[in-house]
Amino acid sequence: MRPVTGERELRGVAVYPDIVIGKAHLIDRSRVKILYQCFVNGEELDREVERFKEAVHTVEDQFVSLKRKMPDKVKDQSFILDSHLMILKDGMLYDSTVKTILKEKINAEWALKKSLEEIREVFEQIDDEYISNRISDVENVTERLLRTLSGDTGQSLGEIDQRVIIVAHDLSPADTTELNTARVMGFITDVGGKTSHTAIMAQALEIPAVVGLESATALVEDGDLLIVDGSSGVVVINPDDSAIIHYQEKKLQLQKYKSSIARTSHLPAETPDGCRVAITANIEFLEEVTAAKDYGGEGIGLYRTEFLYLRGKGFPEEEDLFDDYREVVEIMNPAPVTIRTLDLGGDKFASEIAISGESNPALGLRAIRFCLREPEIFKAQLRAILRASLYGKIQLMFPMISGLQELLDAKQILEQVKEELDRDNIEYDTNMEVGIMVEIPSAVAMAEVLARHVDFFSIGTNDLIQYALAIDRINEHVAYMYEPFHPAILRMIRQVVKAARDAGIEVALCGEMAGDPLCVSILLGNGIDRLSMNARSIPLIKKMVRTIPMKQAKADLKKIMALNTAKEVRAYILEGTKRMFPELEEKGYLLD
Amino acid sequence: MRPVTGERELRGVAVYPDIVIGKAHLIDRSRVKILYQCFVNGEELDREVERFKEAVHTVEDQFVSLKRKMPDKVKDQSFILDSHLMILKDGMLYDSTVKTILKEKINAEWALKKSLEEIREVFEQIDDEYISNRISDVENVTERLLRTLSGDTGQSLGEIDQRVIIVAHDLSPADTTELNTARVMGFITDVGGKTSHTAIMAQALEIPAVVGLESATALVEDGDLLIVDGSSGVVVINPDDSAIIHYQEKKLQLQKYKSSIARTSHLPAETPDGCRVAITANIEFLEEVTAAKDYGGEGIGLYRTEFLYLRGKGFPEEEDLFDDYREVVEIMNPAPVTIRTLDLGGDKFASEIAISGESNPALGLRAIRFCLREPEIFKAQLRAILRASLYGKIQLMFPMISGLQELLDAKQILEQVKEELDRDNIEYDTNMEVGIMVEIPSAVAMAEVLARHVDFFSIGTNDLIQYALAIDRINEHVAYMYEPFHPAILRMIRQVVKAARDAGIEVALCGEMAGDPLCVSILLGNGIDRLSMNARSIPLIKKMVRTIPMKQAKADLKKIMALNTAKEVRAYILEGTKRMFPELEEKGYLLD
Repeated sequence: MRPVTGERELRGVAVYPDIVIGKAHLIDRSRVKILYQCFVNGEELDREVERFKEAVHTVEDQFVSLKRKMPDKVKDQSFILDSHLMILKDGMLYDSTVKTILKEKINAEWALKKSLEEIREVFEQIDDEYISNRISDVENVTERLLRTLSGDTGQSLGEIDQRVIIVAHDLSPADTTELNTARVMGFITDVGGKTSHTAIMAQALEIPAVVGLESATALVEDGDLLIVDGSSGVVVINPDDSAIIHYQEKKLQLQKYKSSIARTSHLPAETPDGCRVAITANIEFLEEVTAAKDYGGEGIGLYRTEFLYLRGKGFPEEEDLFDDYREVVEIMNPAPVTIRTLDLGGDKFASEIAISGESNPALGLRAIRFCLREPEIFKAQLRAILRASLYGKIQLMFPMISGLQELLDAKQILEQVKEELDRDNIEYDTNMEVGIMVEIPSAVAMAEVLARHVDFFSIGTNDLIQYALAIDRINEHVAYMYEPFHPAILRMIRQVVKAARDAGIEVALCGEMAGDPLCVSILLGNGIDRLSMNARSIPLIKKMVRTIPMKQAKADLKKIMALNTAKEVRAYILEGTKRMFPELEEKGYLLD
Repeated sequence: MRPVTGERELRGVAVYPDIVIGKAHLIDRSRVKILYQCFVNGEELDREVERFKEAVHTVEDQFVSLKRKMPDKVKDQSFILDSHLMILKDGMLYDSTVKTILKEKINAEWALKKSLEEIREVFEQIDDEYISNRISDVENVTERLLRTLSGDTGQSLGEIDQRVIIVAHDLSPADTTELNTARVMGFITDVGGKTSHTAIMAQALEIPAVVGLESATALVEDGDLLIVDGSSGVVVINPDDSAIIHYQEKKLQLQKYKSSIARTSHLPAETPDGCRVAITANIEFLEEVTAAKDYGGEGIGLYRTEFLYLRGKGFPEEEDLFDDYREVVEIMNPAPVTIRTLDLGGDKFASEIAISGESNPALGLRAIRFCLREPEIFKAQLRAILRASLYGKIQLMFPMISGLQELLDAKQILEQVKEELDRDNIEYDTNMEVGIMVEIPSAVAMAEVLARHVDFFSIGTNDLIQYALAIDRINEHVAYMYEPFHPAILRMIRQVVKAARDAGIEVALCGEMAGDPLCVSILLGNGIDRLSMNARSIPLIKKMVRTIPMKQAKADLKKIMALNTAKEVRAYILEGTKRMFPELEEKGYLLD
């Protein structure tokens, strides 16, 4: 369709349906992840040697200037860098790398890596741990040399000062938090899949991104013009004019479609055959409340309260918490706000309360476990929530409940706080509902018992899927197993809904499944009362609810529950969704 | 009863019911965990200064001798140690510590620690990461100094050459693997509980141990005479004669009781009302097979096959695997041997196949996931198992199955291997049974489907409890939640047994629950066909099975399943077990 000239097209995994055109900003983090290795010959060889020697000089200069930059108080300690300067010029590293380049006819990086390996072997033979550990100094120096060779200046993502498209091998969670969203128009990465951390971040930041491109960092040069199509997963390097026109037109179409969905987002989510579902928003910051309303959210179904604890200023005062909660509640009033108590721990621990050295933080001292161990911290939050409950409708929700005992313990602390407030003549909503996240497999097994002790359930599918399948979805080796359509997950959801129905309590679902277009029919069929999701997903999900008859959802679910593998379930759902909503595939909303 | 003289008694958690009397060997691992801090005055002050200076000299000598000991090939690198020598004599460390001792009137360790903190603060202000990371060099030197001050010679546990009782703050998994069981008579630790790694190791090594003593390392001096009573949790420091006589008598009684149980260990495990349960052994090494038979094991219910992969010599050859499996099978023939395929990964990865940087290895690329990704490694093992199946009765078992797809994938590879063997005219047992470990919550949810595709289930409660409750029991902060009696676990076991019954397949249980005296009645009541456990537990469990009527077990289970918290379940069971087996409590077999 379009003539191809000097441009080049790559295909990866689309993770956010929008299109952006901009300059590439190639980054490589402190660890040199891909070592460029190649054979060289003829005059190239001398150039490699020269390149290596230049890198050594550069690093040497850096060390010297670092030494000079050291504050007066530690000037005396500057000898620490001397050993690094010496390593730089050491025979085993310097001479040997030069020799290897010439002898094996390989590039500088490769030769340097070989020298390091040789030195490492020697160090490993040393039977004194203290000395053999000193290899880390050699590694540090080598790494700095490799980075210099690769042209990486070690620039932090936070320092980017033009509007660019980030091109990286991978972005760590730390990288993405550093992203200056005002400057970053989009990003593309070599690794990652639809459920990778980077994908989730792109969606949260609402910036176009394509991941899993494999060789983007090798093929894109810094400053290249890029088109990133986050709806189809296509990246065009140095596009010609016709490509630019084509994608600008496509971007316009995507925006039009988005607007068309948005137009009906304030209508209620009611199926054609008259079944009503509440659609609410998940938020993390006070600032998101307005967007939640704008997108048509009928309340806040999950207010994550960790932020105020993670600012690194120590634990927040009850007063600060109260102000924050009160404002959210007042803005939403009379719509309900479900506040989840502190879910710190695992990987999201503030430094001062970090549990050092948990080898499996996801299975560690998290959430309600932490709160029960630190009742004073817990009580301050509960007081703030209770006080704010006067200003609107609050539902209180405990995370990570594993069984009845924990729930009773948490409720007992809540009662103590209420008594304290009574004693101090401080008012609160005495009818405030109390519920739990169902996100641990044991809570599913105990759902029927737990339902008798709470006012509502909220199924947290993100964690539930991870624990039920024993996988960490951040781990790229097993991320492929993260699968909402695993029949075990569908059975667990069904079991929880049934327990809630039998006890006559409300059941919500607030994991990513709630905002996934492919899951709408299943969740409707199950009879979930409330779906809580990222605000930006609300318009589309509402539109889908308003299109799918409950009768059909129930009939489909019956067929789905007879399937025994996630693959079959996914295929069935994908086919049905494409048939009913053909435009979704075309616009890049079906991320399968 | 016994007059107390200079002796002192400590109480902790008993973890292996035996008694030992011996010399204390105080160890402290490379990290100095408890820093002894105190104020000193008068002439003591000079002594502290002297002590510090001596420690510096000692460490200096160590560095110099380390430098000399460096192999010729790295002699050139010895300058790496020079910076450490310089740190040792640096003003901020050396002069400042001496000054602080005299000025603040505190001991050398405390003063040194303060100097380190000051230096750390300065380093932290440096805005170059490269330099500020160099603080680790200062830390290394300080640590070595602290160790020298505390009299720790850094001796490895493997080097202990007399028979001693280890006294430690804690023992790491690495420490315990290093333990020379011929030399170590027992151990006591400050931390740990009944499910801690140390407790499990004591049981595996069958040596008396008491953990969770809190201040053992502070109160015991190297060389003290100790009595460790692993049945009651009592440790006596420097006992007088009457205590020694008392505990020797008690030890005799414990041994008599053990012998009395052992006498009936070769009788079948049949309840008084005629229900038969198979009792088999879990083993890890070929060498354990004989013990399994001696203890009355009616087969090997779980042969863990990781050892041959973890010797650090690369992956084993099919031939080596075959020889190993064949020998186990031949010794046990005609009793069955259940071989579990490779369960590498998580924390038990061989270095060469280590998945670097998994932040939650327990939720990572483990077991069958690893095998499906590395089919050649998997196939070599399957070939060896199939070939060995000719020499007795092998049951093949896949670990960590999460759903039907994984099982089908694994079985397909098994079929490929069978076809290859057929092609090569190599014989194997064509009727070899294939089963799975049920140890992931999703497998429980899918049990009814999975049961139609296998010949048997084996419930792996150790992992199942961890995943179902989302806890890592090695993590001391949440180890308290590790609870076989959690009603969710009991429900899951019931669900798996029901699925097996409905499909007409055998159901075994091979987690630690199988060998726990408190669990026997519950497992009997559930109708588990086979209990597989540490060989040493077999005699007692057999005796209990031969005592508890099935009718009673079923009636008890009914009452237990109506209870809603682990606490209630545990209290109920403990009471019943004590009533029926009063001697168990007295002899220290009930570790509650």
